[in-house]
Amino acid sequence: MAISEADIGIIILDLAVIFTLAKVAGLLCEWATTAMKNKIVIPGVIGEILVGVILGNTLLYGALNLDAEETAQFFEVFAQLGVIFLLFAVGLETPYSELSKVGKKAFLVALLGVVIPFLGGYLLFIGLNYNSSEALFVGAAMVATSVGITARVIKDLHLMNSVEARIIIGAAVIDDVMGLIVLSIVIALSDGDSVNYVDTAFTIMIAIMFVVAMLLLGSYINRTRKNGKTFPVIGTVNNRFNQRRRRKPVDGEGTVCRPNSPEERARSHTGLYLAIILCLFLSAISTFLGLAAIVGAFLAGMLFAEFQDRWLCKEKIESINEFIVPFFFVFVGMQVDIGSFSAVIGIALVLTIIAVATKFVGCGVGALSLGRTSAAIVGSGMFPRGEVAMIVATIGLAAGIVEDSVFGMVVFMAIATTLIAPPLLTYFFNKKYGKIGVNNLKNSEE
Amino acid sequence: MAISEADIGIIILDLAVIFTLAKVAGLLCEWATTAMKNKIVIPGVIGEILVGVILGNTLLYGALNLDAEETAQFFEVFAQLGVIFLLFAVGLETPYSELSKVGKKAFLVALLGVVIPFLGGYLLFIGLNYNSSEALFVGAAMVATSVGITARVIKDLHLMNSVEARIIIGAAVIDDVMGLIVLSIVIALSDGDSVNYVDTAFTIMIAIMFVVAMLLLGSYINRTRKNGKTFPVIGTVNNRFNQRRRRKPVDGEGTVCRPNSPEERARSHTGLYLAIILCLFLSAISTFLGLAAIVGAFLAGMLFAEFQDRWLCKEKIESINEFIVPFFFVFVGMQVDIGSFSAVIGIALVLTIIAVATKFVGCGVGALSLGRTSAAIVGSGMFPRGEVAMIVATIGLAAGIVEDSVFGMVVFMAIATTLIAPPLLTYFFNKKYGKIGVNNLKNSEE
Repeated sequence: MAISEADIGIIILDLAVIFTLAKVAGLLCEWATTAMKNKIVIPGVIGEILVGVILGNTLLYGALNLDAEETAQFFEVFAQLGVIFLLFAVGLETPYSELSKVGKKAFLVALLGVVIPFLGGYLLFIGLNYNSSEALFVGAAMVATSVGITARVIKDLHLMNSVEARIIIGAAVIDDVMGLIVLSIVIALSDGDSVNYVDTAFTIMIAIMFVVAMLLLGSYINRTRKNGKTFPVIGTVNNRFNQRRRRKPVDGEGTVCRPNSPEERARSHTGLYLAIILCLFLSAISTFLGLAAIVGAFLAGMLFAEFQDRWLCKEKIESINEFIVPFFFVFVGMQVDIGSFSAVIGIALVLTIIAVATKFVGCGVGALSLGRTSAAIVGSGMFPRGEVAMIVATIGLAAGIVEDSVFGMVVFMAIATTLIAPPLLTYFFNKKYGKIGVNNLKNSEE
Repeated sequence: MAISEADIGIIILDLAVIFTLAKVAGLLCEWATTAMKNKIVIPGVIGEILVGVILGNTLLYGALNLDAEETAQFFEVFAQLGVIFLLFAVGLETPYSELSKVGKKAFLVALLGVVIPFLGGYLLFIGLNYNSSEALFVGAAMVATSVGITARVIKDLHLMNSVEARIIIGAAVIDDVMGLIVLSIVIALSDGDSVNYVDTAFTIMIAIMFVVAMLLLGSYINRTRKNGKTFPVIGTVNNRFNQRRRRKPVDGEGTVCRPNSPEERARSHTGLYLAIILCLFLSAISTFLGLAAIVGAFLAGMLFAEFQDRWLCKEKIESINEFIVPFFFVFVGMQVDIGSFSAVIGIALVLTIIAVATKFVGCGVGALSLGRTSAAIVGSGMFPRGEVAMIVATIGLAAGIVEDSVFGMVVFMAIATTLIAPPLLTYFFNKKYGKIGVNNLKNSEE
């Protein structure tokens, strides 16, 4: 037994303190958002990161024994687990069927919205004389859009049915996939001091093959299901499950029935079991292929999304995430070193401006055929970088490639882009649809 | 960063392998039970423990890198977290109101069912020349009833309304509380080689005060709620929550409505947040008072049970537990050293016989006024030791007091008593109620 009872007591206390502070901060953010009538949306995540910044940069860090090796190691793994489950949940919102139907326009928006911000971040850091590995990581962190905030603003405006909303959501999904491929490439390129191009090319090939294979598998499952065919193994399990389900009434979407007997209850957890197993295995495979664990977790979520109507697991995964995900964001905050960050706050501001400008231009140009205002809506809707940027920076930091100060900049950029998007988006939407337009769309929404 | 990306990859793989094996083994147990028409009930937990025994005693242990320090430490803490959430869920099934209404008979059954098995285990090990600390732990492991299996058998027989069932459930709950007090006393007594009686008395006093204080708090909350009064803080929060809840329809028990907007969703998780916070804090406080973390977790569950109708959290906690609890039982199995256990299998059998005999006599005598058959029903219903015995043994093992071989014996005893109970219970129930009696009770059940 390597860990004493006392150490475990301290870890439990840390879990309690961190969780409490994270949730209180999260609720404060929500309340502030409501108080400002959604004009400025402060997502709870930002509160959680700030808690981490405070914990990591004050005397609390030592007082809570967070610097002890056993504690630090546990929280590092636990935070990783949190981010894996988070990306699985993101994947779960991204069934292949959605991905395939958003069409060429969303693809163009996504592609330009990946290439231009990547170049923007990369070139800025090359220009500032950072080494190329670090510049690659910053570029990768500029890529992926965190569409959660945008989706919430659009929902509040009752504009989910607008062309712009669909393009934004679709492009953000494609963005995520491209972002993960970029991340894999960056990890491969920055592995070791002297780059072995044969090995690197090999890893990149594997990364792309893995992602494409999972996408094709998703497409296959989706096609097979649409044609009403069963397919080997999964089809059989599916059918058996359906037979069982028919025996008892199941309420419509949005409600979950609690089964009565222990057997039935065990059975109803099958979806959760399969989800966790798929998520953990693909995450592990990802790391062994030299990719980030989250790539596998995201693809697992995307694959599992095809079965969501059969195996209810979303709300159960959400419950688990409510518990473990905050530890990731607090962990991100704890890694921010205020001291080294304050010296480079100017660069952080420039990075944020570039992050905003490159997405606005990249995505805007992609959507320009819809008109200028629509292009502006799409462009500003794609601003928020959120969790994926922080994950990329965390991986770079853990690998010793990204410095403390650069890590702080990326976190700052991720937070800032997230805060800028909602008011701009609301402004452009109002410009296009006005109050009347909004209400018209609202009526046709149901 | 103390842990490399590769180490995290291995830990994720281990999580995937352990979770998969645990769930497959669990499902096999359920299927076997169904195949045997519930005559012999093999709970899934037993499958999980056996998976642990296999993982811990074969080449898989090294192959999965479970012997590496980083991995072992993580799983130790993660297993602890699992058991804390498990005991919270057990507490959640034990509202104070239940505890107070089962009456004198259940209390007598519980008391005798605690004292006699404790003495049985303790005296056996003293007689076998083990040192007194180890004997105390074995005695403590003999005490607490794991009523889950029994409750399931009773439910399957549709006899939940019988006098015997109520006494069994009530006594098992009181048992749990007493068991935790005994555990706290044993930990205090066995701390260090030379016992400092003043310190020990102090710790025991704190333990009892903590448990009693929480029970009184539960009683106070329960009384206040029954009288319809609000009480400071909690009452206010309650009222605000109720006002909110009235705005949207909530389905009856057994269904959970998914809220629509992000704010509503966040609000609906309030119960889960409060539950986790209470659970973690009381667990941490417990360890700092020198008690086991599970004591606090159980008391937290019991306190929170009073609010279950207001703050839905049971199903959410259950989802979290579906993920983390299996790791505790696999961990228990991994600690079993087949080599050292096989040398003492004879003693393990004797321990099991004593475990069965002492509960049968202790609880039977307590219930004798109901007649002989009823006493036999109550006695055999209290056999299963299950998780609490294993937790006690795990604590003893971690503290270096319980040897590997003795740990194996306790796990064996816990499994064996759990398997013996269902057929005996069914036999005695049939003897008393027969088929007709069962059906009569069944009709009056609703």
